[in-house]
Amino acid sequence: MTCKDGKADNVANEALPRPTYLPFYPMNPGDGPHSYVQNSSYQRGVVDIAKPIIEDEIARKLDIKNLSSTTPNCFWVADFGCSTGHNSFPAMQIVTQAIYQKHASSGLITPKVPELFVVFNDVITNDFNTLFSTLPPYRNYNAIGVPGDFHGRLLPESSLHFAYSSWALQWLTEVPKAVAESGSPAWNKGEILYTRDRVEVCAAYLNQYAKDLEAFMEARAVEMVSGGLMALLVPAVPAFWNPETEYTIPSDLNLLGSCLMDMAKKGKFSEAKVDSFNLPFYFTTPEQLKAILESSHSFALERLEILNNPGKYTLPSVNARAAFFRAVLEGLLTDHFGSDIIDELFTLYMEKLAASPVFLNPDKDKSIVILAVLKRRSD
Amino acid sequence: MTCKDGKADNVANEALPRPTYLPFYPMNPGDGPHSYVQNSSYQRGVVDIAKPIIEDEIARKLDIKNLSSTTPNCFWVADFGCSTGHNSFPAMQIVTQAIYQKHASSGLITPKVPELFVVFNDVITNDFNTLFSTLPPYRNYNAIGVPGDFHGRLLPESSLHFAYSSWALQWLTEVPKAVAESGSPAWNKGEILYTRDRVEVCAAYLNQYAKDLEAFMEARAVEMVSGGLMALLVPAVPAFWNPETEYTIPSDLNLLGSCLMDMAKKGKFSEAKVDSFNLPFYFTTPEQLKAILESSHSFALERLEILNNPGKYTLPSVNARAAFFRAVLEGLLTDHFGSDIIDELFTLYMEKLAASPVFLNPDKDKSIVILAVLKRRSD
Repeated sequence: MTCKDGKADNVANEALPRPTYLPFYPMNPGDGPHSYVQNSSYQRGVVDIAKPIIEDEIARKLDIKNLSSTTPNCFWVADFGCSTGHNSFPAMQIVTQAIYQKHASSGLITPKVPELFVVFNDVITNDFNTLFSTLPPYRNYNAIGVPGDFHGRLLPESSLHFAYSSWALQWLTEVPKAVAESGSPAWNKGEILYTRDRVEVCAAYLNQYAKDLEAFMEARAVEMVSGGLMALLVPAVPAFWNPETEYTIPSDLNLLGSCLMDMAKKGKFSEAKVDSFNLPFYFTTPEQLKAILESSHSFALERLEILNNPGKYTLPSVNARAAFFRAVLEGLLTDHFGSDIIDELFTLYMEKLAASPVFLNPDKDKSIVILAVLKRRSD
Repeated sequence: MTCKDGKADNVANEALPRPTYLPFYPMNPGDGPHSYVQNSSYQRGVVDIAKPIIEDEIARKLDIKNLSSTTPNCFWVADFGCSTGHNSFPAMQIVTQAIYQKHASSGLITPKVPELFVVFNDVITNDFNTLFSTLPPYRNYNAIGVPGDFHGRLLPESSLHFAYSSWALQWLTEVPKAVAESGSPAWNKGEILYTRDRVEVCAAYLNQYAKDLEAFMEARAVEMVSGGLMALLVPAVPAFWNPETEYTIPSDLNLLGSCLMDMAKKGKFSEAKVDSFNLPFYFTTPEQLKAILESSHSFALERLEILNNPGKYTLPSVNARAAFFRAVLEGLLTDHFGSDIIDELFTLYMEKLAASPVFLNPDKDKSIVILAVLKRRSD
């Protein structure tokens, strides 16, 4: 820090709980063939199916009269985990439109219609240039970018009226330490994600997930106004599925892990290299998510809907499926294994997908998305 | 617009005065040899010399007690025209540190120190990725990016406590139309910027400058809280200088224009191509700026200081001088003439600089920077 006055400096540092700077990885930037923009139709499918529910919740439960009194003539909406905006823009269009309609139908006699400000948040390395330069020119809100880890504070106290997050809360702040420690009962040797038969590994991942989600909720509790609504679209799995005949996104990722092990066995890199690599993801079950959300003192869980894999038909081919995972994982994989292995890894992955009697059938994909709607309680 | 409800849509569009999307050009992005980051020591010199004045103004005039009552526990600072942050970060460090010190010395008994949020604003094509990824990790504020033209509304009503803009207000929203019209008395044939002997051209540019600065002030008047302070660092020229023995930044740009005419005469492109190119810049005199600022009903002009060319010794060589202008102008020039001419143009420019008995002597540079401090009046 360059400032000279140590005292004032300490005061300033106390003031703001800084997000930690963990090695978060953004979605693939730009709009090229491996970009998130070109390979996120799955996530877009989620937005489309959630639309009527979000509109309904805003229409019925957003208490415009009391909200607007806290910050006159101004509403704040935020998307936590917006990526490059491709799927965030339609979602923010849905939310802002619903808020304007609610305002128009609320019978409020105000001199003017409120202004809407939409906060686009993602990690500090996110491609905000693509987001800003592709903003819809005729949008009905002002756009604001806030870089940083959404597990910490990002916005002013009591400023936010509607919070949204889609396909982002599966990211953990870190891989649980025990999972990467040889000798630990939760050591995840030979795999890159928990598998259901490794109970200690699953528990370590769930524990980290709960801790991270609670941190997210605590930060939002400070930032949101009383009565503010939050819609979370959370990628998840059912409590049970048959791994012999069905699959989920974690199964997909385990399959990718098996490709890495195959490459290690061929001598491309050591098996220890795979052992030391674990994905910072957790895919909750509805019951687990419900328990975590209901433990919040600041939010009331208003609605919890299971969306039955809205995006399953958006990844019709082996190529589309591989491109989808590559857009999300390339940064993580490159950082650990180097960029040279990426093409070969995904070629191998496509071969395994094509050879599987299970993975090629979208009806066998048991992945789900949970839509949770919460309301900020009064303190 | 994708929404279905025309009525709500109209309402929404009325709500927010959208900034127009003019062809603004950002500073050169990234951190390569032609980047703004590598070639803006001049602008940085301005920040350094302004530091004690800004600190003094905040210490004496920022009425923390009354300001903090409007948005409890939160202060908003904004830099309009932040570019990639290289010079904005030290400026924002100065401002935020001064605000914390003012708070610490104000004798306010509050449960906690306020949080500071700094808004970094620049045009929508600005390289915000570089800005976000180079944010000081131990800064004492949360960072927010707001893309858009600062001549329009960008922030919520009555939200902003301190506004700052350095080396940005010389950019016009457009080249005055008459300047580019053959046959108009203000047609600026053969030049790329006004010259002092063309009275109609100068008047057209000044008129545009006043209009744009007034639009900036009107937008800020809505956004700022009563009692909020604004510090503007405005590149300028004295009312008189001797063009035979002295120069200013406009003289530099006229010299660059003469290089373009030389290239046209060599057949690189037509002279009409140069005639149709005019820079959207105006460098005010102190008297002109004072008159425009004093015409505001919303702001009181608290201080107007002439900083005697603080950056003049930061461009010691012909190369540094050319690199400085290239970092600022490359986008504009490329858009009109194509990228192929850029290297040759700046080589020619360096030759002309080197051959001049005037331009090589920093003491002959009569460019100034004006620091204006304004206070938002109560309505």
